[in-house]
Amino acid sequence: MSTSGAERAFAADELTEDGFLGGRLRIAQPRNGYRAATDPVLMAAACPARPGQAVLELGCGAGVASICLGARVAGVEQTGMELQHAYADLARRNARANGIALRVIEGDVARPPADLRALGFDHVMINPPWYPAGGGTEARDPGRETGLREATPLAAWIDLAVRRLRPGGWLTLIHLAARLPDLLAGCDGRLGSMDLLPLAPRGGRPATRILLRARKGGRGGFRLLSPFVLHEGAAHLRDENSHSAAAEAILRHGEALNWPAR
Amino acid sequence: MSTSGAERAFAADELTEDGFLGGRLRIAQPRNGYRAATDPVLMAAACPARPGQAVLELGCGAGVASICLGARVAGVEQTGMELQHAYADLARRNARANGIALRVIEGDVARPPADLRALGFDHVMINPPWYPAGGGTEARDPGRETGLREATPLAAWIDLAVRRLRPGGWLTLIHLAARLPDLLAGCDGRLGSMDLLPLAPRGGRPATRILLRARKGGRGGFRLLSPFVLHEGAAHLRDENSHSAAAEAILRHGEALNWPAR
Repeated sequence: MSTSGAERAFAADELTEDGFLGGRLRIAQPRNGYRAATDPVLMAAACPARPGQAVLELGCGAGVASICLGARVAGVEQTGMELQHAYADLARRNARANGIALRVIEGDVARPPADLRALGFDHVMINPPWYPAGGGTEARDPGRETGLREATPLAAWIDLAVRRLRPGGWLTLIHLAARLPDLLAGCDGRLGSMDLLPLAPRGGRPATRILLRARKGGRGGFRLLSPFVLHEGAAHLRDENSHSAAAEAILRHGEALNWPAR
Repeated sequence: MSTSGAERAFAADELTEDGFLGGRLRIAQPRNGYRAATDPVLMAAACPARPGQAVLELGCGAGVASICLGARVAGVEQTGMELQHAYADLARRNARANGIALRVIEGDVARPPADLRALGFDHVMINPPWYPAGGGTEARDPGRETGLREATPLAAWIDLAVRRLRPGGWLTLIHLAARLPDLLAGCDGRLGSMDLLPLAPRGGRPATRILLRARKGGRGGFRLLSPFVLHEGAAHLRDENSHSAAAEAILRHGEALNWPAR
């Protein structure tokens, strides 16, 4: 296990409680550490898990994505892996507080623990650290730094996901659009039936995020889908929420993101 | 040189004469061979060449892209490389007939001739064969088969382009959207300031083509741009031309495709 990041459990005064899915979920997050916004919510909405299936989230942080998925799909058997003890502890507490069953394994993507290596999953979700190792400004908070910067290359995250997926299982991943070349290089032909959904802040703008869904052993080709637009209008004009209707359906009403049929 | 494809020059009765850029260009193409539609026109519009710069097109076929570029940008010094003698011959004739200066070198991407290896370019354009080697149905016409199916992997086309580009030079490439993973793998971090423009047949539909622009030694990050939509409306309703205004500006009026500023 790495010694970077948050080792000691968070104290109550280090946390804020934030509403997700229109306030239906209440999730504690560190005031100054790695904090989830919409990415894990969108990823959970995009994961095509069905009731009873086994789902693994690599790098689950405070558990936002797994808890959102558990709130949408009844009876999924969920496991999260998290490097930082304080976040793993928080994910367990958050899941319990929201009535979601979530087993959290503490472990490093670079050296996955034996109890994870023994398991197979129908789905793996990953909201990986944004930035490659080296370069850029280090976050002041070590937990936030660990959540945002790769200690382990993206390809290793994908490799672990592919190994832990059962044949026919799906990877769902959200990342910065700027990391698309690294993401596809990391997949390296090991996944098929790949759909790439650009997430654009507004219509006509470059994508800021990408959602990828791909299948182990899938025989379908690669599809570059029409962008999912997060906000209405051409610019941010008001302080009020300006999410598009499609984004509202996911972020406030907890609906699924519907991938086009294959 | 490969012995595949068309070796003997085309006879007049094997050719059709087709209008490009609203009829401003008249280009002879084999009736049953590899025929250009809009891809080379879009690629030429997307190539950010300025007057006086040196441009190489790899796999120039009958010369449509190079001739379109020469019609838009005055005084570019253009070279095409083409594997198949009959197409190289046609490209020379087409360039001459349209008053465009174009040197065509006959050669194979897998074994580039010495007279190409001695040259450096400000721009390289590639409209590569669509399909990977092996699998699929072979085209009946050998020239069309050579134009559509890779005898040489995509990575080798990109490798040759990178080697022939001067520092700061630009690659402009159009391909099937389904080949994006191979394309980015082929670039393998050797080009920077990369912009990816999805080309969608209609709004809301998956992209069918992608246009890539990338710079040798460029330090800018990767951008996934908002799609360029080729046709108006949600479906093909009439036989009339239904190109979007943005597509008409390029395909009929010979305008440039404007990449967003960096």
